[in-house]
Amino acid sequence: MQTKMRKLGRGVALVGAGMSKFGAFQDKDSRDLFVEAFQEMLHSVDKGVDPNDIEAIYVGNFSSDLFEGQGHIGPIMSDWVGLIPRPVTRTEGACASGGLALRGAVIAVASGLYDIVLASGVEKMTNLPTAEVTDTLAAASDILYEASAGFTFPGLYAAIATAHMAKYGTTIEHFQRVSIKNHENGALNPKGQFNSSIRQIMDSRMARAKERGLPLPTWQDEFDFLNDEAVNPTVAWPVKLFDCSPITDGAACVLVVAQEIARDFTDTPIYIIGTGQAADYALHQRQDLTSIGAARAAAQEAYAMAGVKAEDIHIAEVHDCFTIAEIVATEDLGFFEPGEGARAAAEGITARDGAKPINTSGGLKSKGHPVGASGIGQAVEIWQQLRGQAGPRQVPNRNLALGLSHNVGATGGTCAIHIYERR
Amino acid sequence: MQTKMRKLGRGVALVGAGMSKFGAFQDKDSRDLFVEAFQEMLHSVDKGVDPNDIEAIYVGNFSSDLFEGQGHIGPIMSDWVGLIPRPVTRTEGACASGGLALRGAVIAVASGLYDIVLASGVEKMTNLPTAEVTDTLAAASDILYEASAGFTFPGLYAAIATAHMAKYGTTIEHFQRVSIKNHENGALNPKGQFNSSIRQIMDSRMARAKERGLPLPTWQDEFDFLNDEAVNPTVAWPVKLFDCSPITDGAACVLVVAQEIARDFTDTPIYIIGTGQAADYALHQRQDLTSIGAARAAAQEAYAMAGVKAEDIHIAEVHDCFTIAEIVATEDLGFFEPGEGARAAAEGITARDGAKPINTSGGLKSKGHPVGASGIGQAVEIWQQLRGQAGPRQVPNRNLALGLSHNVGATGGTCAIHIYERR
Repeated sequence: MQTKMRKLGRGVALVGAGMSKFGAFQDKDSRDLFVEAFQEMLHSVDKGVDPNDIEAIYVGNFSSDLFEGQGHIGPIMSDWVGLIPRPVTRTEGACASGGLALRGAVIAVASGLYDIVLASGVEKMTNLPTAEVTDTLAAASDILYEASAGFTFPGLYAAIATAHMAKYGTTIEHFQRVSIKNHENGALNPKGQFNSSIRQIMDSRMARAKERGLPLPTWQDEFDFLNDEAVNPTVAWPVKLFDCSPITDGAACVLVVAQEIARDFTDTPIYIIGTGQAADYALHQRQDLTSIGAARAAAQEAYAMAGVKAEDIHIAEVHDCFTIAEIVATEDLGFFEPGEGARAAAEGITARDGAKPINTSGGLKSKGHPVGASGIGQAVEIWQQLRGQAGPRQVPNRNLALGLSHNVGATGGTCAIHIYERR
Repeated sequence: MQTKMRKLGRGVALVGAGMSKFGAFQDKDSRDLFVEAFQEMLHSVDKGVDPNDIEAIYVGNFSSDLFEGQGHIGPIMSDWVGLIPRPVTRTEGACASGGLALRGAVIAVASGLYDIVLASGVEKMTNLPTAEVTDTLAAASDILYEASAGFTFPGLYAAIATAHMAKYGTTIEHFQRVSIKNHENGALNPKGQFNSSIRQIMDSRMARAKERGLPLPTWQDEFDFLNDEAVNPTVAWPVKLFDCSPITDGAACVLVVAQEIARDFTDTPIYIIGTGQAADYALHQRQDLTSIGAARAAAQEAYAMAGVKAEDIHIAEVHDCFTIAEIVATEDLGFFEPGEGARAAAEGITARDGAKPINTSGGLKSKGHPVGASGIGQAVEIWQQLRGQAGPRQVPNRNLALGLSHNVGATGGTCAIHIYERR
């Protein structure tokens, strides 16, 4: 396919962003979570917004059909936040459903049809037992050739991990570095599912063992802890428990408006200057498992539209559904050469105070991964970081102007990338 | 909500359209059906199209998740027609999923992002036993308040039907008229699931009874036949079997391009001059069951954008998932006053040779209703009729220039309306 320079018909900006707490909530369904995210979004708009001025809604959702038995979730979400009769469209691209909702809103505003559009995502996953969640997610693989052969997502990403290890010498320690970093960031995110660093988790387990008079573990550091099969069992080698994002309930919302009216809502809009989307074959058909073609193609489109390069990006939220996925993402985005993503993580380059902070929110790994909401959750983090509102996890001593979000569906069948600018 | 005049950033046209055979196919899955529709679409483009020039894909699908156990159907459909790595977005709005895919493509072209976009829809429903299909479709109702109270869609539309009967004196005979008309049209549609008029069905049952030496039925005409509970049992009073659209497998595709390049593909493009979409509360929350608010709002938007009125429309495909739905649709669209839709059907105004031909394809009732594909299937019929290519079911002796499609999700939670023009 010929590469084409794509431009939007007019500029687009975010003027509000909010999310529910991410976690496992017995007493909340997708409606409750959506209302929570929507209300926080409303409150985030500096100069206020009348909800009646919202003209259309995009809802990212992977499968409330399978998770909650509720199809046609769009108008229900819209009803619960008082937006009937506005048009509402559900977008689905597996775990990139949220990214597609954001892109849908961006395109709708760019088309001239609307000036003010809600982009949102929601998923309520914990109604089902864990094994059923794993099977439900496996429906996003190619069921004729992957799920039916026994593959689930930990297994599919394990195939990516082993390919990366074989080709580039990536090690389990590299994966652990990603997990440690993201839990460190997540410990500073009150909205995240896990609010603890691996060190804190280790210390609390140690303290509990002491309290109960049990034999004390011999962990000296986080790596010892993560190497202990008793606390970090292998799910699908080399993918272990702490390499996997959790099963999460959550929702997130951002308000997308035409650039020319953005300052009616805030003096600090965050402009969306690039959007890219692409697709790839199911994993079993690919020549090379160490890279996601859709991410490379979507990044190329987004960079070209924004007129920026990988090295210009100050901060990024990438799709770390598994730790290997973050490493591959940072390579696909051009932040690091192929095979160098693992080393970058090990050397602290992607840490919050590193040269290229990745997943300051804690990423899907620690913040949680309510699959249809994750893409919008990434936009919420970029919004907060670029506006200097990320509190204790704000990237320190840095004037952040350019951010990026990278949202992947399944093993890369779908990828949506957005580039954000504070001017 | 304030009514606003909405305009697309640039003009949009259809230059190709195709559909698979609609029906119940044991040996075909959604991939096969999609390929069939795509290939017919390609062949329909008068001056040809290189599939490599297609830049993006929208796929309407209600729930391959529940019907086939396949989530994330977008990239799989795209793969099977050779369109990887182009961006593919699944849209879902229950039975209006196809209409949302068409609207997504229209907006994407209008935004300036793409010039050539495939809008498509697909649903493979017959893998499940009928009772499970009914339950699966019920997931598109509000499961907290409707499905959980025992409602399925025949029941929900029976509530609409009884309300219409009570308020306007509509009768079961009116519903029968719609069924008879749509089967008559469908008998002329080789792509339809049923290729028989009610009269033909009646005659063949009569012939079979004779052959087998069984007691001969006493049917004098179609109404006798439809009043015979043995052949037309009540599903949910007053909705009987022949008032319900069938369970169908099928796919449909149209090619949407920027107006300025439309004549590169055909000398007879069909311009999309109006698009409207709206949402409504679930049925149990509504004050009035005899009209669908989303259809009225979407029609208003589409008419205003197109600069035309209801009386200007020459032909329409409307969402007759049940016969009552067609009557309500023709009222919501402003073709007839509230309560007059039934009489219009009875008087032949909506017949193929009437003043306002409705569902010349056979409608969902006779052509079939593969839910995610139906909205695109409607566009295929309008495309053929406006171009004079509908064969034996072509509206006779009429210069058709303006068409409309009306696609409803669930009981009207979603509605998407498009207005088409041949110039």
